[in-house]
Amino acid sequence: MPASMDIAIGADDILKAVERIRPWIHKTPVLTSRTLDARCGGSIFLKCENFQKVGAFKFRGAINAILQLTDEERTQGVITHSSGNHGQALARAGQLVGVPVTVVMPSTAPAIKKAATEGYGATVVTCEPTLASREATVHAMIEQHGFTLIHPFDNWRVIAGQGTAAWELLDQAGPLDMVITPVGGGGLLAGTALAVKGRSPETKVIGTEPLAADDAKRSLATGIIQPSHDPKTVADGLRTSLGEKPFAVISKHVDSIVTATEPEILDAMRFVWERFKIIIEPSCAVPVAPILNGALDVRGLRVGIIITGGNVDLDPLFQALAAKWL
Amino acid sequence: MPASMDIAIGADDILKAVERIRPWIHKTPVLTSRTLDARCGGSIFLKCENFQKVGAFKFRGAINAILQLTDEERTQGVITHSSGNHGQALARAGQLVGVPVTVVMPSTAPAIKKAATEGYGATVVTCEPTLASREATVHAMIEQHGFTLIHPFDNWRVIAGQGTAAWELLDQAGPLDMVITPVGGGGLLAGTALAVKGRSPETKVIGTEPLAADDAKRSLATGIIQPSHDPKTVADGLRTSLGEKPFAVISKHVDSIVTATEPEILDAMRFVWERFKIIIEPSCAVPVAPILNGALDVRGLRVGIIITGGNVDLDPLFQALAAKWL
Repeated sequence: MPASMDIAIGADDILKAVERIRPWIHKTPVLTSRTLDARCGGSIFLKCENFQKVGAFKFRGAINAILQLTDEERTQGVITHSSGNHGQALARAGQLVGVPVTVVMPSTAPAIKKAATEGYGATVVTCEPTLASREATVHAMIEQHGFTLIHPFDNWRVIAGQGTAAWELLDQAGPLDMVITPVGGGGLLAGTALAVKGRSPETKVIGTEPLAADDAKRSLATGIIQPSHDPKTVADGLRTSLGEKPFAVISKHVDSIVTATEPEILDAMRFVWERFKIIIEPSCAVPVAPILNGALDVRGLRVGIIITGGNVDLDPLFQALAAKWL
Repeated sequence: MPASMDIAIGADDILKAVERIRPWIHKTPVLTSRTLDARCGGSIFLKCENFQKVGAFKFRGAINAILQLTDEERTQGVITHSSGNHGQALARAGQLVGVPVTVVMPSTAPAIKKAATEGYGATVVTCEPTLASREATVHAMIEQHGFTLIHPFDNWRVIAGQGTAAWELLDQAGPLDMVITPVGGGGLLAGTALAVKGRSPETKVIGTEPLAADDAKRSLATGIIQPSHDPKTVADGLRTSLGEKPFAVISKHVDSIVTATEPEILDAMRFVWERFKIIIEPSCAVPVAPILNGALDVRGLRVGIIITGGNVDLDPLFQALAAKWL
């Protein structure tokens, strides 16, 4: 509910975050493709956070939050809930800086995600796969251990960290007419909007989400956060409802939200895999889809897209290869 | 048979090729991974020709050959036989320079390969899937149309072109203790050996091939080209026998040939996909395998690997995703 939530950060906080996290992150490349440009009539710049640490932009927000802890908070440790990239990102950030990290995950999370998070030195605590159990578990752990909660997206320091990807993109690609990101909880889109509008108010900032998980579009239309109820979409990073802090920023600064169908998302993902030869997860194919199918008219425009991550389950492919060749 | 074949080119020809093809190729990046380095104890530099035009180093040899045609040869056009990357590379090179290209393919080649080659403007002629039919078809087309044959690997200009990848790698990564490539027909390994030994005689040059297609290793051991009879390996680019010209170079300049089993190749491919987030074809996982499994001891060494291409059949993965989500 934007009316009740002040926006606590601005472009200067993104710049501070850029400088704060610079020694800890990879400066990811910006890739282009003549085939993509020819097909859509614009100049498209992919900011490739799939090459970021832990394979996702989430490392930016996590390390930005970790680096601002007080000495006492560092010693006590931090906690979050995530079965995905944020959990791994926080684990890796804590490991690098020497801060204990606890990640609460539903018991239904894949064993490989739990193992990866533990591989970065975090303690994984499982809960029932319900919101109530998750919140109770996190609350109990904070009560007991004095952990600081670092929410995956409803946290200003996390939002500022996510905005650093767009800030870098503007440095690398030059002026842009439009910047597009996917939107799930809204941390990336909010941080991107603060960065882009702060530096270049006339640049359009567009959020994209699966049609099957169009809660952000409906939230903007109604002015009230619309909950997302476990939507069925291949874009597994975008199934969450918006956070209040991101929604306040998005309501004020984002120009529009565009949706893509599941076949459009898979087509866009395959296009990027085949043409760019890089591995992107389904969530970051969502902003590519409206470029490819013309839902966003980018003719003559310079357009940046944040490619959010590259963590994909490769089992189906390698099982097929093993079945054929081993 | 090396005794009967003089080596007609040297490092200076590679340098000339570097300068000749520079305006036509992508300068591909060199990628590193702390995880890979920590695992093997060396510093590994991947020269990523999967980002080259048509997704493979083969474009280098093709454009180098095309650019040296006489005016009359250009007008008459060129021909090759290939169901893989060389056919597409020659087609694209001819398209860019304005030279008609004919590619002879076995009738068993996947429709998608034929379509891709035709998509670059080439004429595709199909033959029976036998060596005799292929040679007869190529011969007849040359007789009839006056085409110039540009063999996929048994051609000095092609070999010189392939050597430019290693030349660039040395410019980008600095001095190397070892350079590793896969070996199929031998064009890449021969060009690499000429480039590397010409600039830095003490640098080791290693060829790698599937254990199931170890004809290069046996050829070096016996001093006579050992034919490869349709070996069963996932590394589809490495099923060919050595050409005479590459064999002459390899016999003289390559330090050793190392093999990898099929499970090792798939493990290495998956490692690169997951850690580097780039798409590499099975053939270029072959040189990564002995680094990962310790068959090549690279502790303390600076090692370059030519990542040959990124053209992989993604159908199994996208079929699995579509079955689950659409």
